[in-house]
Amino acid sequence: MNVTVRGRTRHYRTVTFDRGSNRVLLIEQRLLPHRFKVVATRDYRETARAIKDMIVRGAPAIAATAAYGLAQGARAFRGGRLAPFARHVETVFQALKAARPTAVDPVNAMSRVCAVMRAGETVEEQQGLGLAAAEEFAVESVRHCEEIGRQGVKLIRHGARVLTHCNAGWLACVDIGTATAPIYAAQAAGKRVHVFCDETRPRSQGATITAWELAQQGVSHQIIADNAAGHLMQRGEIDLVIVGSDRTLGRSGEVANKIGTYTKAVLAKRHGIPFYVAIPLSTIDWNLKSGMAIPIEERHESEVLGAWGAVSNPKSQSRNPKTGRRAYLRVANPTSGARNPAFDVTPAELITGIITPAGIFKPQELWRRRRELGFAE
Amino acid sequence: MNVTVRGRTRHYRTVTFDRGSNRVLLIEQRLLPHRFKVVATRDYRETARAIKDMIVRGAPAIAATAAYGLAQGARAFRGGRLAPFARHVETVFQALKAARPTAVDPVNAMSRVCAVMRAGETVEEQQGLGLAAAEEFAVESVRHCEEIGRQGVKLIRHGARVLTHCNAGWLACVDIGTATAPIYAAQAAGKRVHVFCDETRPRSQGATITAWELAQQGVSHQIIADNAAGHLMQRGEIDLVIVGSDRTLGRSGEVANKIGTYTKAVLAKRHGIPFYVAIPLSTIDWNLKSGMAIPIEERHESEVLGAWGAVSNPKSQSRNPKTGRRAYLRVANPTSGARNPAFDVTPAELITGIITPAGIFKPQELWRRRRELGFAE
Repeated sequence: MNVTVRGRTRHYRTVTFDRGSNRVLLIEQRLLPHRFKVVATRDYRETARAIKDMIVRGAPAIAATAAYGLAQGARAFRGGRLAPFARHVETVFQALKAARPTAVDPVNAMSRVCAVMRAGETVEEQQGLGLAAAEEFAVESVRHCEEIGRQGVKLIRHGARVLTHCNAGWLACVDIGTATAPIYAAQAAGKRVHVFCDETRPRSQGATITAWELAQQGVSHQIIADNAAGHLMQRGEIDLVIVGSDRTLGRSGEVANKIGTYTKAVLAKRHGIPFYVAIPLSTIDWNLKSGMAIPIEERHESEVLGAWGAVSNPKSQSRNPKTGRRAYLRVANPTSGARNPAFDVTPAELITGIITPAGIFKPQELWRRRRELGFAE
Repeated sequence: MNVTVRGRTRHYRTVTFDRGSNRVLLIEQRLLPHRFKVVATRDYRETARAIKDMIVRGAPAIAATAAYGLAQGARAFRGGRLAPFARHVETVFQALKAARPTAVDPVNAMSRVCAVMRAGETVEEQQGLGLAAAEEFAVESVRHCEEIGRQGVKLIRHGARVLTHCNAGWLACVDIGTATAPIYAAQAAGKRVHVFCDETRPRSQGATITAWELAQQGVSHQIIADNAAGHLMQRGEIDLVIVGSDRTLGRSGEVANKIGTYTKAVLAKRHGIPFYVAIPLSTIDWNLKSGMAIPIEERHESEVLGAWGAVSNPKSQSRNPKTGRRAYLRVANPTSGARNPAFDVTPAELITGIITPAGIFKPQELWRRRRELGFAE
């Protein structure tokens, strides 16, 4: 999407590749929203490190990063013998896989790149095929988000006020995003749309990354405390909710997503407000039978007990305040502890529809229509 | 309640009076939870300033502060002539009233003190009666909270896990608190109880003041993000919700309270978890017919866009970390704005009961039983 830095607007993707220098280019997400910077990794080890250190995050984004990292590692091989090349590629694969061991998307993406590569008869040919496959993966990832936008835009009427939670935007993908895709498509279609961004404590991805994304695209938006959505719904100020998902259960239609998603779904149901979940097909888990079986990660209590930001003056202008160095503040009582579940599970009955690149489905019909949705028996 | 400072435990009230020095003693709440300090106001002007500057907050607490401030001002009068004394008292009254112009509790409290004073036949007698009336008001305020505890303790079984939102604790009252009263009573009765404190963004009163209060009394507790309560209810980890109220409508049974209260009530209803509101009788508004008529204050967006706390290191120990100076951080994207409604309204159908000093009532029966509840036709 477009990013404006010091008055100059340019199109960026979250992850791209520079053939000439054999570098992966990544938006340094840990500095956002206070600073925009693109970093270039010089070899596959640095690319793995960028995944591990959260310079890049979000399943589709790290999948594309790993695919490029594999091609980058393969291209760095010097020599013409296939056997040592294959061993080298395996080393690269394992290094990138180890960077985020619980994620399945990078492994799937790299396996695809490897499968394409093997068709080459020389090292050079395999290197070329590997990069082409990584590029193809990234392009396809963008196409899927575009398709989510095309499907979802029908749900947004002119003047709609949309609530979103956490970040399922283009920085979590290669471009465009999932939950944000229908919003950008609506904007492109000339529909007026206003977005309420849930702050999304404890990590505040809504207030930081989603708000930054929307501001860059010139989409009208306001940040709200996670506590405020119920009140706004009660007073008729929200027309539609769209969120992303970390894992969607193909058998039950349940959706695991950032903590607080379930609460928004319960509130939306009470007020008769449509609640949609936008996902790429890779997010569907066809194995698990029940959301209660999803292990809910409990993260470090420091996230709940404090906040990250840039030192500032609350009395200075709210928009574009002068900010100083990044710091962590202890907000909570110093002698208290916290519970910090990072995800929750929303049952199918609270979900109006699942927006996928293949169409919009009721959560209960995912299993019946699994063939269309890419399920391989 | 008890406060432990540098290993010494002492009983404190939020507001007390020192006869010898004619000073009002107040816990400096703006420094909590990072520092505990009692300040003494030397005259009624300083007392008014303390209310205005939020050294003391919470309707019952500022009512008692105003009552003491009136007595303090009256006692500072030199001379024996009743007419100038009455004019002086009126000046004091207006100064204290102006310190928090929207609050009705300080005015009611001071009117009571004035009425008692007028029975005196000399200035000296009136001064004595004024202080006695202020003391009586504070004592009665504590008695009401004790009675709320006595009523509410029946609802807490041994081992209960209680959710609370914002702060309706002893720092908002003279002592004991409203929503916290049943919890302290349960602890005193030897019942094991664990409290989940909603962080309560944007001002984080749950993470700061409520957590501090509970820690001081040795009540087992954990802070949670406002997003987490739904998940904990879903997994069966919350047995009961108790919150306070800023205004309870006697005619409709609706409850206005800190933003996010409504959301918790909706979630509790879905999970069949009892949802109680603890209030002193002075919180009941017998005039307004509908919660939709309550104007919802929208506060400054800087509260949502950032956070206050003490500079710290997130990797240092979570309990008792070394903290530095107090600061404000800009958390949100610098070019984004916010909506900041400060209160919401919970309808009667979501409320299991209203815990008052006069008993526990269904919200729908407040009007029918208005005589018992102090309504004067």
